[in-house]
Amino acid sequence: MSADLKHRILSRVQADLVAVEAALRENLGAHLPIVSDVAGHLLFSGGKRLRPLLMVLSARLCGYGGGREIFFSTVFEYLHTATLLHDDLVDGAVLRRGRKAAHAVWGNEVAVLVGDFLLARSLTIASDTGMTDVIKVIAGITESMSQGEIHQLTRKKHLDLAETEYLEIIRRKTAVLMEGACRVGALISGADERRTAALTAYGHHLGMAFQMADDLLDYTADTAILGKTVGADLREGKLTLPVIRALSAAGDDDRKTMERIITDGDFSVDDFNTLVGLLVSCGGIDAARAAAEGHVNAAKAELSAFADSPYRDTLKDIADYALSRKH
Amino acid sequence: MSADLKHRILSRVQADLVAVEAALRENLGAHLPIVSDVAGHLLFSGGKRLRPLLMVLSARLCGYGGGREIFFSTVFEYLHTATLLHDDLVDGAVLRRGRKAAHAVWGNEVAVLVGDFLLARSLTIASDTGMTDVIKVIAGITESMSQGEIHQLTRKKHLDLAETEYLEIIRRKTAVLMEGACRVGALISGADERRTAALTAYGHHLGMAFQMADDLLDYTADTAILGKTVGADLREGKLTLPVIRALSAAGDDDRKTMERIITDGDFSVDDFNTLVGLLVSCGGIDAARAAAEGHVNAAKAELSAFADSPYRDTLKDIADYALSRKH
Repeated sequence: MSADLKHRILSRVQADLVAVEAALRENLGAHLPIVSDVAGHLLFSGGKRLRPLLMVLSARLCGYGGGREIFFSTVFEYLHTATLLHDDLVDGAVLRRGRKAAHAVWGNEVAVLVGDFLLARSLTIASDTGMTDVIKVIAGITESMSQGEIHQLTRKKHLDLAETEYLEIIRRKTAVLMEGACRVGALISGADERRTAALTAYGHHLGMAFQMADDLLDYTADTAILGKTVGADLREGKLTLPVIRALSAAGDDDRKTMERIITDGDFSVDDFNTLVGLLVSCGGIDAARAAAEGHVNAAKAELSAFADSPYRDTLKDIADYALSRKH
Repeated sequence: MSADLKHRILSRVQADLVAVEAALRENLGAHLPIVSDVAGHLLFSGGKRLRPLLMVLSARLCGYGGGREIFFSTVFEYLHTATLLHDDLVDGAVLRRGRKAAHAVWGNEVAVLVGDFLLARSLTIASDTGMTDVIKVIAGITESMSQGEIHQLTRKKHLDLAETEYLEIIRRKTAVLMEGACRVGALISGADERRTAALTAYGHHLGMAFQMADDLLDYTADTAILGKTVGADLREGKLTLPVIRALSAAGDDDRKTMERIITDGDFSVDDFNTLVGLLVSCGGIDAARAAAEGHVNAAKAELSAFADSPYRDTLKDIADYALSRKH
């Protein structure tokens, strides 16, 4: 089902993806070769281009005819890449999409500064829309994402991380960007408030589902397919929904075992497998999957504000894909 | 003379400085206490508020009467603080304004993310002007500064750094921000092209003079007054104008001595004093001071586009202050 879904989405958006790819190369606008090299290392490493695509599809769904949607959509990939550069550094992640992370190749200094450049680049392009409400969305995304990351950072290894706090963190660090991409697609099209709100809500729920699915993959995928190390979240002390739910449902013994493994920064493979077993038996995996499904369904429901169209179908498929993907 | 000049400037701008200070606290808009703490550590550590002041004075000089100049001017202090946070991390600097650098207190991760937040915050406020040409200036400043820093980083310890390359680096990392502050002051006032260009050029020359003076202080000040370690540039492998000019004027023996000290990352106090002696005797210090003076004079000359006024006088004084300050 997942492969079919992916194939169906890709067959519909292929021309847009090619155009986005070309625009990403064309608009990078770097003055120094090293900036292009470092930005390109991550920017052209097989990303899904989901965020630009969300903006383009949202604009099309709202009948946009200005001809600049591909150009504007690069904002969301530059922004995404900037935050990945900084986040990998913050998390000390060594791998990203199966390649060495940029900070591990060029050093922290260069990764920080190239991230800054990409943030600024995305805002320069956003300012080209000439629409201050669009620019506010873009600036607001970065404000939100940086604070979400800081929040997560300060709550690492805290076993008492509440579910509401986890939800606020993933909203800020992931959902706000997808929400923003969909919202900007509506704004540049001059869509009315009802449809703008519907696409904004679609993007929010999609982002929540994507991050929840991502957090699940950290326990259920294997490293080769994922392109990064399984169990990485836990090793960094990040508590995610499967763990939060399992901890709250577990009996004393199981909870103590989980807590010991979570607080041990250097757990063994056996320990990790024990933990995954407990996440399953205490219902953490199922509960997290159910929560993600709830957001997938909520996202799809928002699309009823629009008449049937190929764009609506693709956005629906993307919502289903959020949870069915393997990496 | 320096103390008099400073006193005269301060007496004229005191009310504005108080207002800027209050606006900086009011507009920070941080969601998390730790973001306010980290941003505030550097933001409220005795900075001169020179950049907001340049915007405010430029706007007044152009007859701005919109009443929002103090609010908008915070953009330039947030932007400046964001880049200081990231630069101190990039440079591994331990002290800033006599206090421990933020990355040394809270760690690199938090310094990166709070810097990102401040960059975004400055753009949110800029978007509030509703003027896309203003927003483009702000986004362009960050693009330029990040690339200036990267350029400098990749050319550390390169003894063949050309003067043109040094000038391009300091233009990007320092002058563009002061230039932008003055330009935005003119833009929000609806100044005509000639006066906008004059203020833009004033800001450019002021920025060049400020950075050249800063680079001189690294050899001529003492640590207690400077609030950071004297000789820090050299220890980081940054070649600045006094060194570039001295190297090009020196005879073989003196050049070899200088090159040995420059390439030795861990030089002694005696070595440093030897180097400073050679910078003086080979004319590097005088040449760098003369270059800075040239920019001070060019900055003041641009102000002839404006009729005599207290604002023009203060901008003139600020140009003189650039070179006479002790820290």
